[in-house]
Amino acid sequence: MSQPSDSDLLDRAVAAIARLRRDGARVHCMTNTVAQNFTANVLLACGAIPSMTVSPDEAADFTRAADALLVNLGTLDADRRTAMPVSVDAARGEGRPVVLDPVMCHLSPPRLAFARALLGHGPLILKANAAEAAALGHVDTACRIVTGSTDRIAGNGLAFGVVGGHALMDRVVAMGCALGALIAALAAREVEPAIAALAAVAWFGAAGTVAGETAKGPGTFVPAFLDALYALDETEIRNRTRLVP
Amino acid sequence: MSQPSDSDLLDRAVAAIARLRRDGARVHCMTNTVAQNFTANVLLACGAIPSMTVSPDEAADFTRAADALLVNLGTLDADRRTAMPVSVDAARGEGRPVVLDPVMCHLSPPRLAFARALLGHGPLILKANAAEAAALGHVDTACRIVTGSTDRIAGNGLAFGVVGGHALMDRVVAMGCALGALIAALAAREVEPAIAALAAVAWFGAAGTVAGETAKGPGTFVPAFLDALYALDETEIRNRTRLVP
Amino acid sequence: MSQPSDSDLLDRAVAAIARLRRDGARVHCMTNTVAQNFTANVLLACGAIPSMTVSPDEAADFTRAADALLVNLGTLDADRRTAMPVSVDAARGEGRPVVLDPVMCHLSPPRLAFARALLGHGPLILKANAAEAAALGHVDTACRIVTGSTDRIAGNGLAFGVVGGHALMDRVVAMGCALGALIAALAAREVEPAIAALAAVAWFGAAGTVAGETAKGPGTFVPAFLDALYALDETEIRNRTRLVP
Repeated sequence: MSQPSDSDLLDRAVAAIARLRRDGARVHCMTNTVAQNFTANVLLACGAIPSMTVSPDEAADFTRAADALLVNLGTLDADRRTAMPVSVDAARGEGRPVVLDPVMCHLSPPRLAFARALLGHGPLILKANAAEAAALGHVDTACRIVTGSTDRIAGNGLAFGVVGGHALMDRVVAMGCALGALIAALAAREVEPAIAALAAVAWFGAAGTVAGETAKGPGTFVPAFLDALYALDETEIRNRTRLVP
Repeated sequence: MSQPSDSDLLDRAVAAIARLRRDGARVHCMTNTVAQNFTANVLLACGAIPSMTVSPDEAADFTRAADALLVNLGTLDADRRTAMPVSVDAARGEGRPVVLDPVMCHLSPPRLAFARALLGHGPLILKANAAEAAALGHVDTACRIVTGSTDRIAGNGLAFGVVGGHALMDRVVAMGCALGALIAALAAREVEPAIAALAAVAWFGAAGTVAGETAKGPGTFVPAFLDALYALDETEIRNRTRLVP
Repeated sequence: MSQPSDSDLLDRAVAAIARLRRDGARVHCMTNTVAQNFTANVLLACGAIPSMTVSPDEAADFTRAADALLVNLGTLDADRRTAMPVSVDAARGEGRPVVLDPVMCHLSPPRLAFARALLGHGPLILKANAAEAAALGHVDTACRIVTGSTDRIAGNGLAFGVVGGHALMDRVVAMGCALGALIAALAAREVEPAIAALAAVAWFGAAGTVAGETAKGPGTFVPAFLDALYALDETEIRNRTRLVP
């Protein structure tokens, strides 16, 4: 089966964005304490509703009440270690998409082992940078997004790169963590994970480009980026996204 | 006893704001990790001083050093479960006001049970949205604030609604959590909880309206909102607040 | 040995800033949950790379992968209590600088005892305000920074005060916590702790002054401050810094 054209892929991606904005989606985010606030504001700007508890007593209930789950391994404490596998199983049991972000797993052997074990509860959508992906090696996933100067997305017979964004995105913490949450939100409204990932990457890239045009530095970049996520229409997002083989 | 006029209620509310700005107030905030930073910045913009530790070893000491206590049940982990009842008792023992925000208790049976148990250490000031208030049912409180398109405040023979704010407030995380902290700060400087709650709701609503006039989206709304909390004079707050029966 | 001239001290401080911007530095920050996001954004704006985990399973690995360690005692939970001494030893074992910020230790006897015990793993760079420094009393340090309207820096035969900054810095949470992280980053690129501390204090003061010139309140101050940290050149930082005996 040949891959759809870039134009077809982008049509499907912006349709997913329109559905998320119209219908919303609850995303339970088990993410690190550094990224929680920004991640929640990204989701709210994009029309999704976040919840964030990581307590083992509660996370599965919140997961079952959500349309998608994000599991991000930054600040991986005992509560998170206990609650994450249970929440992944809860989401999988409801047929909901799960995104795994194995933050800095290449720097910590127990975190790497934990990431591998979670992937065994899958298939999951994996979002990682090159160093994290290399440390994980070959693993089964529903879709694999490897971020970098070109973001590479592959899953279910689709494979492509996406170019975009702005250099200041590397000067703001939790950009990648928030992208993982947005992929989860879009995967709740688009059944093909690679299309959901493309939609999130394109949305982030376009908003980053727009924010970079007015920001005076990384401080003013953050509010401008959230404004752009909120305000950019789907045609603008599409026009600012370039796919590469 | 008939209720004071709207004008009398607003006079007392803005007088409480003026006292907080003049005298300050220490507020110990046992709140969720998502809301901590924004909550602290809201308190500082309003002239109060936050502390935030949740460790069972320390929370009671910090509570006794504070003029009011906020207990917010988001991200309810083991430390918070252990430390919150002790801190509530410490605050009550010193005669200090306590605000309870039972965040999303309608989605988690153990959280709902925990909220009810804390209310038994009261009477507390309860701030909840409609879904949380409905899940709790009838409970004894010192004052009850139910937020929504009209915020409803009732306690100690006073009962009224407050209309105001801006739609972007729903697109920023932790707005409601920070409101709870501001109610606590004002309750340290105004003995009647319903008046303290009115002051906080009016201040938030006026600042939200002002911020919404210049913000380009939810990103620029946040700094504009904090600036407005800091800068709005009491007459402007009063003029932008409308009470309803 | 007589102390170098103010001009010599400032030359060395701005040279350290230039090295950090050119070479970067990884800083492992074991800091409180309130300050994590802002601290990370300050480091990124200044050219450093933060990591933030506090889990006892992982913190030593992340510390060994970093060029400097920050230990900040806000929100001192069980994980932090367990992991901090191990991480301090890991950093010391690699010959890396360690900054201790004993946040509000004067309000909590167990926190004060914990701070004193950590200082026994030193010598460490101590950054405290006057109340915290007074509670600690005489302790051995590699360098001692006591913040206030004049910031006082003393260590290894150097001793001076620094005047600067803007009143709105007291209306934003985690300013002092982020300063501690920046001292750690600079201490990774400047062997003399008092010079690293001067560089951080001067950079913060200059950025605060610049931000205060355009900010409309504490909300817009934060992005303006981060922009100024990122954009101010070393000559401007130098020109805006005044040393006092």
